[in-house]
Amino acid sequence: MHVPLPCSVTSSPNQAPLLPSVILPPLCMRLPIFLPACSLPSHLLFPSPHPFFIDHFGFDQDLTFQQRYLVADQHWRKNNGSILFYTGNEGDITWFCNNTGFMWDVAEELNAMLIFAEHRYYGESLPFGNKSYSDSKHLNYLTSEQALADFAILIQHVKETIPGALNAPVIAIGGSYGGMLSAWFRMKYPHVVVGALAASAPIWQFEDLVPCGTFYSIVTNDFKKSGQCCSESILNSWGAINRISSTDEGLKWLSSAFHLCSPLKSKQDAAVLKAWLSETWVNLAMVNYPYKADFLQPLPAWPIQVVCKFLKNPKLPDKLLLQNVFQAVNVYYNYSGAASCLNTSQSATRNLGLMGWYYQACTEMVMPMCTDGVNDMFEPRKWNFHVFSEECFKLWKVRPRPSWIPSVYGGKNISSHSNIIFSNGGLDPWSGGGVTRNITDSLIAIVIPEGAHHLDLRASNPGDPKSVLQARALEVQYMKQWIEKSRHKH
Amino acid sequence: MHVPLPCSVTSSPNQAPLLPSVILPPLCMRLPIFLPACSLPSHLLFPSPHPFFIDHFGFDQDLTFQQRYLVADQHWRKNNGSILFYTGNEGDITWFCNNTGFMWDVAEELNAMLIFAEHRYYGESLPFGNKSYSDSKHLNYLTSEQALADFAILIQHVKETIPGALNAPVIAIGGSYGGMLSAWFRMKYPHVVVGALAASAPIWQFEDLVPCGTFYSIVTNDFKKSGQCCSESILNSWGAINRISSTDEGLKWLSSAFHLCSPLKSKQDAAVLKAWLSETWVNLAMVNYPYKADFLQPLPAWPIQVVCKFLKNPKLPDKLLLQNVFQAVNVYYNYSGAASCLNTSQSATRNLGLMGWYYQACTEMVMPMCTDGVNDMFEPRKWNFHVFSEECFKLWKVRPRPSWIPSVYGGKNISSHSNIIFSNGGLDPWSGGGVTRNITDSLIAIVIPEGAHHLDLRASNPGDPKSVLQARALEVQYMKQWIEKSRHKH
Repeated sequence: MHVPLPCSVTSSPNQAPLLPSVILPPLCMRLPIFLPACSLPSHLLFPSPHPFFIDHFGFDQDLTFQQRYLVADQHWRKNNGSILFYTGNEGDITWFCNNTGFMWDVAEELNAMLIFAEHRYYGESLPFGNKSYSDSKHLNYLTSEQALADFAILIQHVKETIPGALNAPVIAIGGSYGGMLSAWFRMKYPHVVVGALAASAPIWQFEDLVPCGTFYSIVTNDFKKSGQCCSESILNSWGAINRISSTDEGLKWLSSAFHLCSPLKSKQDAAVLKAWLSETWVNLAMVNYPYKADFLQPLPAWPIQVVCKFLKNPKLPDKLLLQNVFQAVNVYYNYSGAASCLNTSQSATRNLGLMGWYYQACTEMVMPMCTDGVNDMFEPRKWNFHVFSEECFKLWKVRPRPSWIPSVYGGKNISSHSNIIFSNGGLDPWSGGGVTRNITDSLIAIVIPEGAHHLDLRASNPGDPKSVLQARALEVQYMKQWIEKSRHKH
Repeated sequence: MHVPLPCSVTSSPNQAPLLPSVILPPLCMRLPIFLPACSLPSHLLFPSPHPFFIDHFGFDQDLTFQQRYLVADQHWRKNNGSILFYTGNEGDITWFCNNTGFMWDVAEELNAMLIFAEHRYYGESLPFGNKSYSDSKHLNYLTSEQALADFAILIQHVKETIPGALNAPVIAIGGSYGGMLSAWFRMKYPHVVVGALAASAPIWQFEDLVPCGTFYSIVTNDFKKSGQCCSESILNSWGAINRISSTDEGLKWLSSAFHLCSPLKSKQDAAVLKAWLSETWVNLAMVNYPYKADFLQPLPAWPIQVVCKFLKNPKLPDKLLLQNVFQAVNVYYNYSGAASCLNTSQSATRNLGLMGWYYQACTEMVMPMCTDGVNDMFEPRKWNFHVFSEECFKLWKVRPRPSWIPSVYGGKNISSHSNIIFSNGGLDPWSGGGVTRNITDSLIAIVIPEGAHHLDLRASNPGDPKSVLQARALEVQYMKQWIEKSRHKH
């Protein structure tokens, strides 16, 4: 057995806030949505669109909008098949369609029609067209409750318009926020879906349901496990940046060392750099897949191990340490070798999906996060609801309601529901807010120790670890049971 | 055995619309809300009010309002007691508080705190004060979903602020629309209430879930059973009114014969008279209690039997028949003998509660009703959604969405829920839209053959038939089971 050398950790004396003062949305959501269009198979239908009420819960406005959804029916058995319904989350639905290979892989076995429904305010499903994001009045209908109602009515519409679909049992499937929606959909509309597969769904990442530090401590553990002294190197990097960024010359040096497209000009810019680095480590933890993949970025297998190869010596002088940090993040941003410079605001612009999630985080989806630099490798930062609320009001003219999600969806008290699988990857920071223990014999937790963010929803791959194969097999088994049981009711 | 003589039925040749062209709300809701104030016991608390969001489902407006609720705790066992929560319906909560004696009767046995929550937009719980009903913009938050969210948050507030209440299991109780709310509350917020007693809750009186004629055929049966030729007399009365109201002299005669406060001036007024009579028969069916009572009006025991004493001969000439009809309705409107004249628009004015229900009927609560004069004693009238929708738009500038309630609350597909008692009176016209057969072993139907509208929720009375005593005993038994079971979870 190899005993790892102890790593000397330098605590950063300047405990400047790690996270930028703008609201950090749950990071899984920072999706580049301008991806190559979904490679839609030729059998993918676009049925005649159905008008959806923009406001399901009020009658003053009777406006409707067009919701986009994709249907694949090549494995569907008319009259006797099932429907797998992807509860779209914050992004272009074609992107989710392309990244949820699991549904395509199991369609034949379940005789299933696949439906991918786009979440309102994302992709092309914009209730007010290009005015949808113009102000809080137009954004007022961007909530999970409205989205769930869209899904319920879409399913009804599909069942009524596709011959032979009327009695087909429907299973909701989703990952991340989409997984939360799947679980909540089954909870609130059990008459519409016979069950739900909620992959990497942090339904408890709210209020004080889980400790606010869990998320970043899981990120840290991923780095700890992936290379000796790796997390310590990152922990030390914050102090190095703080020291170097205190002079103009240092800012210049940092801009050059990190190949930044826009040079740093102030201490404030250095805070943005640190936030961007933090985000990078978080994203790496989410996509730490066991094979070469292209989810948030094109990456090698076990990318954190690759990254950590550059981060073996936390005791290096500041500049040398940070040069290594650059090498490390360059794996994430430039694995293809095509980038001529790195853009610290890259994921925060160009992305309507991100805008939408910012808004949702400022209203319903208030997910407290904190770091302490002891149980994690980040600069200490407490969760401060007041500051958060002020930022939200500045940005959107809305105030977050942190207790609403637990009030409406039940918090930890969900045992009276049924037929929900909560799957979580042991490597996924979002598993900290997920359900990782069985609640009842029909509210099932599946943990995939070697899994990152909803690995189980990805297409089958030769590099899949055994644990995800077992998880998928179990998921299929439950889905078959739900389908079977629902048949006996008809 | 006495064989009843056959009654000759004259079908009315002029099949003018029976129901007035204004929207007929479910008639249980026509509550005189200017009743003597609830005789509040001295231990009835008014805890410090909690601000409720006017819009739980949108964040553009952050306005709040004061919801009224009443608390009685004299039988409550602190730390180890339960909470019975009345899900207020369309009216002043003190009136429901005074008319739900069952809760007071069982409080001691269940060690229960009683809470009566006022439904938003009724009584004193007006979100925008006296502007609440001013237009469709201010009325936009009058929905069942908002009301349920109010209840959920109120319960949370009460549990957090009353010492010893935090872990108390809560049971929702309601009658009529309040019963629908109780059932839906358990369906949507099972983490808040361990079960629900939904008395006389017509949760299926929507879309095509039940035949539109059932309601009025039950009314008719009540009259058939209560006196020989009674329903035939009423059926014949419409033709008599049509014939007499065709002349000015006839209108004059009708005004005098019915002691109307405002004389009839046109054929249109005669339609109002007929609608008012229909409403009277329906109300009598709802409050056909086995003992002297004062629910909608002060009335004798088995009031339909008393009414039918005047309606034994359907073959009488028009004027004699209608004079008898006057005697009959006079039992309903003037049992006390205090009224100097009868007011056909009486229940349609003075009553904010009624206004609110009209609005709800024009948005979510679209309950199709029809008559055919064959299976019922009313003039034939088909359900015409288009006409209804036009009326709603004229009145409120809103359009009804008839399929929304089944979509959101599940229609007949509710078997995955649990712990709901649906009680219905066999005499109650609303039982036609209610759940009268067990759905599962925890979705229980209790039918009280001798019961009218939520008789079981009324205070115990020496005149109670055995069936309601049995119903109440069973209800208490289930409630105890729910409470017991919830204790094992803590």
